[in-house]
Formats: sequence, structure tokens, C-alpha cells
Amino acid sequence: MLVSLRVKEDEFTVTPWEVTGKVDYEKLIQQFGTQKISSEILNEISKVSYGKMHVMLRRNIFFSHRDLDLILKDYVEGRGFFLYTGRAPSLGMHIGHLVPFLFTKWLQDTFDVNVYIEITDDEKFLRNQEYSLKQTSEWSHQNILDIIAVGFNPDKTFIFKDTEYIRNMYPLVVSIAKKLNFSQVKATFGLDASSNIGILFYPAIQIAPTMFERRRCLIPAAIDQDPYWRLQRDLAESLGYKKAAEIHSKFLPPLASSSGKMSSSVPESAVYLSDPPKTVEKKIMRYAFSGGQATTELQRKLGADLTVDVPYQWLYYIFEEDDAEIERIGSDYSSGKMLTGEVKKILAERVNLMLEEHRKRRERSEESYSRFLYDGRLAKKMWETIHS
Amino acid sequence: MLVSLRVKEDEFTVTPWEVTGKVDYEKLIQQFGTQKISSEILNEISKVSYGKMHVMLRRNIFFSHRDLDLILKDYVEGRGFFLYTGRAPSLGMHIGHLVPFLFTKWLQDTFDVNVYIEITDDEKFLRNQEYSLKQTSEWSHQNILDIIAVGFNPDKTFIFKDTEYIRNMYPLVVSIAKKLNFSQVKATFGLDASSNIGILFYPAIQIAPTMFERRRCLIPAAIDQDPYWRLQRDLAESLGYKKAAEIHSKFLPPLASSSGKMSSSVPESAVYLSDPPKTVEKKIMRYAFSGGQATTELQRKLGADLTVDVPYQWLYYIFEEDDAEIERIGSDYSSGKMLTGEVKKILAERVNLMLEEHRKRRERSEESYSRFLYDGRLAKKMWETIHS
Repeated sequence: MLVSLRVKEDEFTVTPWEVTGKVDYEKLIQQFGTQKISSEILNEISKVSYGKMHVMLRRNIFFSHRDLDLILKDYVEGRGFFLYTGRAPSLGMHIGHLVPFLFTKWLQDTFDVNVYIEITDDEKFLRNQEYSLKQTSEWSHQNILDIIAVGFNPDKTFIFKDTEYIRNMYPLVVSIAKKLNFSQVKATFGLDASSNIGILFYPAIQIAPTMFERRRCLIPAAIDQDPYWRLQRDLAESLGYKKAAEIHSKFLPPLASSSGKMSSSVPESAVYLSDPPKTVEKKIMRYAFSGGQATTELQRKLGADLTVDVPYQWLYYIFEEDDAEIERIGSDYSSGKMLTGEVKKILAERVNLMLEEHRKRRERSEESYSRFLYDGRLAKKMWETIHS
Repeated sequence: MLVSLRVKEDEFTVTPWEVTGKVDYEKLIQQFGTQKISSEILNEISKVSYGKMHVMLRRNIFFSHRDLDLILKDYVEGRGFFLYTGRAPSLGMHIGHLVPFLFTKWLQDTFDVNVYIEITDDEKFLRNQEYSLKQTSEWSHQNILDIIAVGFNPDKTFIFKDTEYIRNMYPLVVSIAKKLNFSQVKATFGLDASSNIGILFYPAIQIAPTMFERRRCLIPAAIDQDPYWRLQRDLAESLGYKKAAEIHSKFLPPLASSSGKMSSSVPESAVYLSDPPKTVEKKIMRYAFSGGQATTELQRKLGADLTVDVPYQWLYYIFEEDDAEIERIGSDYSSGKMLTGEVKKILAERVNLMLEEHRKRRERSEESYSRFLYDGRLAKKMWETIHS
């Protein structure tokens, strides 16, 4: 089972913990054996969403899938489905971290389905020698406030920390663990004999929520998480559950480079949800990697290379939802009519607008915290359930 | 780290899941690097137990230890200690299974300390392809009733199933898991790359209860469990806990052979706690391996070999607590004055007497079940605690 890809010319790596190089998404689809999101499947979605289509689908940020066609069939034929995504808690969330949640919220609104959000505080602790459980616990709380601010339905969304919900999951977790051996997790995740036994066991915990319901599960997540779902698909039916379906996103490029993915550990490469307006502006103006030319004269003459320009890509992926407007910006910028500084300024404004709204909503997150974690309609039911 | 011992002449194996051959306990002490229970240490115990000494100590069934001297020091100097033992649930418990519990109860009575009893339903399930969690759960319940019948203090004893108590243990469990890698558990338990990830992770769960208190933990158990405690002793201090102390028992020989240990899967080799009197008598008279001679004439002339005679050993280890009486039986039997049939008859009577009393107590076990598991003084406190 292949996890990382190193291709001679365009060398890049994609694993659940590392994304480096300029990712060739076509090659990823081939090598991971997933399906491209086709215009046919977009048409199918369009039928059930009454013509509305999330910008991340229109712009192909969600570009790959497994069994999304079956999910739509289950929906249309009344069997339904559920959504599952998650987060390894970190000190601060940046804009890239919001991508799967923003999209998952749209799916919930569109299909009116349950959403399960796993906070993998155990994994974060196990994977990093320097982190304590106290830290990962505090980060979990802060990250959950940001996730709540995205606007999920508090009666159809269950957010849980692994360390808290483990008892309810544990019988299911050991049933999954019994189906996986060292050789498999080694091959799938590139682990080895020096890996700690918590990390070796952890895949069973990330797989468990795909079996929280007997219905089919759809997982919106970046494609680097795919190895977990491949294992899930190999064993799910033997436990009486359905193979999980997935919809995979690309990685939002880091601010300072057009390759790899945004990382919390490189502050200038990320815009944090907590960054004040001045900081956002400074980061974008100073660090955002430009595809424009070195001088105004050259830019006017040659125009920008949009394929490597980070400000343009951020606008395209997230911040400019208006198709005509992004078309105009792309055309003017690549023809030399617009300069890098102008595009960066537009981006900074848009990012700050979004962050301002996010922070307003986040201030009210504490109010609904307990509904998402403990006493909303779905959460309550989940705490009464032992999964086995 | 050595787990199994195969010595050329007296070939035998001791691992947490397998005991075969005639065990040479002196060699085990040497190879495992444990301490013999010396007369000095027995004197120390005698001082604090006001001269009372459990038959299993007097007869050297508990024969080896680690840090038992430090436990006594902690006790005498007022720091205290706690006891921890456990059981992998099985369809029926036999007399051999009672050994650690009978002894642990005596220690609790003598030192007035807390006892934690772990029911490893997860391990049992993970280790056997054919078992379901439903089975291990039902066995757990039945086994717990037998354990309660031993007579522990319901306010100072906490009996817990791993699948139920996992949430309270989990932060501690992952902290332990982070300190152990595949190479270590592989070497210690003879696991390999085809071992399922649940089994690889499991040692962290068996180690966790040694850290339920900051005081030193004393583990009364058969010596085959020692590999877990060696791992514990390597990592405990790095997590701020004390190295666990142990007191190791020999294995009660199976009925039909003087080597190996009693096994639930060989019915004629074991006397179950549920066996009716007639069955006990039949099993002992028919199957118990005799060290006596082939004919009455030869027996009168040559006497029995006590070192291989199972009925004598059962009397010696458990069923004849009176030192003068066991002395008399041993002397008469080895000199030929007593015949095998007479010794077997004495044993059958003693076993049936014990089982009758056990079953009477077991009938009342359900009454105190919830105190031991959920609402006794210690149990209540444990459910309010998240160990981290």
C-alpha cells in the first residue's frame, strides 16, 4: 500500500503527517487509486442541492473521492448517510485548517445529516515527544471553539475528544485493532519497530467513528488522510459496516511558498484565526509568494504566473466566491493589468473580513459548547451509546 | 529480555500465555533476575502480621519477589502501599485461578490496604480469534462473582473491566504507550509483525493500574506475568511513579500431570469451581497423577514419590493448612504406610469442602457486586478519577 510519492521531476511527499514539494494531484489520484470528481458527479450533487454548489467543489479544491456516487445514491434512495471529519489539536488553528470544516458544514446544511468531529488529542500527544496531555487538552478546547464558530447544527453534530469518548468507542476500537497487524500499519503509515505502541494502535481509533452508524460514512478531509480510509475499506465489511466514502481536498498552499502545505510550526507561512488585522496584512504583503514579475515594468509586459502565485490561489480556493470576479482578477493579473500589490491587498481585505466574522461567532462558541460535546440531541445519544 | 526458558534436560517454557514442562523455579529466579523469598523476609512479614503466616508463604508457593522488602519498609514507615492483581476472563474458573486471589485477600486482611483487580476482557478478546466481546463480557461477570466470593473488603477493593474503565485509565495508558515501542514488546512477549495492533498496545493497559496510586504497588501473581512488570519497572520512574513490587507464585500442577499448569481447555486436568462433588471425586480418583507405586505391595515396600504426586502437592499447596498433618501424610505416604487411594480420598473431601463453602459465598456475590465495581468507597472514588 503506497503512502508517499516521490516522483523524479516533481518530487513531492504526501503522508498523514507530512506534505512537501509541489503536489501533482493527478498523480496522487492515480497512485492512491481514488476517483476524480467528474462533471457527472457534480451534476448529481447539483440536483439534490437545488443548483447550489460550494465554491470548493466549483473550483476543484475537493478534487478526488471514493464512493461519493454511492453516497448520493444512498441519499436519493432514502437510506441516508453521515459525515465524519476531525482534527489533531494544535496551539493555534490557521486558515488551512478551516477548509474541511467549512465544506463539511455546507454538506450538513445541504443534506441535513449528522456530523461527527473527532479531536485526536491522544494521537497528538503520542506523536510528539515534547507535548504533554495537559497541552493537547487545552489546545483541544481552543480548537473546538473555532470549529463551533463554523456554524454546525448543534443537534446533529457531535464533537468529541478521544481521551473523553474512548470508553464508548473502545469495544469497537479493539474489534478494529484485532483486524490490523503491525505489518499493515507499518506499510500503510511508514512506521517501524521504534514506533511507540500508542501510535501503532492509533489507526483503530481514527477508524472507529466511520462505524458510529450503520449507514454509509462520508469523510471530507485533505487527501493525506487517505491511508486510514484504505485500511477501513479493507476491514469494514468483515465487521458488518459499510466501506467509508471520502471526498478529498487539496492543500491550501502556505503563504510563503507554492509547494507543501500550510504549517502551524512555520508562523510566517500561515495566517492564524487569531491574527489581528495588521498582522494579516503584514504577513500577506511581506511573505505571500508571488507569481508576478520582479519589476512593475516586467509585470505590465509579461503578467503573473497564476499557477505559483499564492495570493491568487487563496482568492481562488476560498476568498473570492464570485466566479466572474475571480475570472476578472485572474485575467487582469496574468495579463499584467494588475500588480502583485493590488492582488495582495484584495486578499488581505477578504481574509480580515472573514476572520472578523469568525471571531465574532467564536466569542459565542462557549454558549453552545456543551450542546456539541455533551447535551445536544446527537451528543446526548452518543454518550448513551457503547459502540461494539 | 528473556521470556521463555528452554533448558536442555528439564525442558520447560514460561510465558504469560503458556507454561509447559516441569518448571525449575530456581532457574526461573536466576533467569528472570528476581529474588528468592528468604527466611529474613518471612521474619519481617511475621513481625507485622503478629506471627500469622499464610500457608502459601509457609509452603513456598509464593517463592520469588521483587522489592517486597521495600513494600514492608513502606508499610512499617507509614507510607503504605496497595495491591493489584487481575484475571483474563474465561468460561469457568478452576482451583488454580483462585491461588492469587486467596493470597491477595490474606494480604489485604493483614495490611488493611486497597486492592485493584483488573478484568482484562479486552486482552482475552484480542488474543483469541474465536472469542467475541459478548462472550468475554459474560465470562467477566461470572468470574467476578467467583472473585467476590473470596471475601475482599468491599470498601477497599475495586474490580474493573478494561472495556468499562478505559476512559478513566486512558490518559495514563497513552502516557505508558508512548514509552514503549514495537521492538520492546516484541522482545518481551515474543510477538511479531503479524500480531494485531491491539495486542501490541495491550501491555500499556496491564501496566496502568500499577500507577493508580503514588504509593508503591505490590502485585501478587503467578511468575508468568513477570514480563509486564519488567517493562513497568523500566519506565515507571520516568512518569513519576514507583517501580512495582511483585510476589510470584508457582503454578498449581494440573491434575493429570506433574508438569505445566492447570488449563481450562483440558477439562480433566482442572477442577472447576462449579464442579459438583461427584465430578470432583471422579476427577481426582481417576485422573490425578500419582507418585505412588503400581501395586499395593510395591507401595507398601517403596512408598510414593512426593515430588511428582499431584494429590499430595494439592494438599501441600492449598488444602491441608495444618503443618503437623501434612507432615504426617507426607511421611506415611512416602514410607508406604498410606496408599494413593487414601491420599486421593482426603484430597477429594477437602476440595469438596472448600468448593461447597465457595459456592455458598458466591450465591451472595451479586448482593455486593455493585459495591466492588461501582459504588463501594474505593470504587466510587475510582470512577471519579481520571488517571493521567
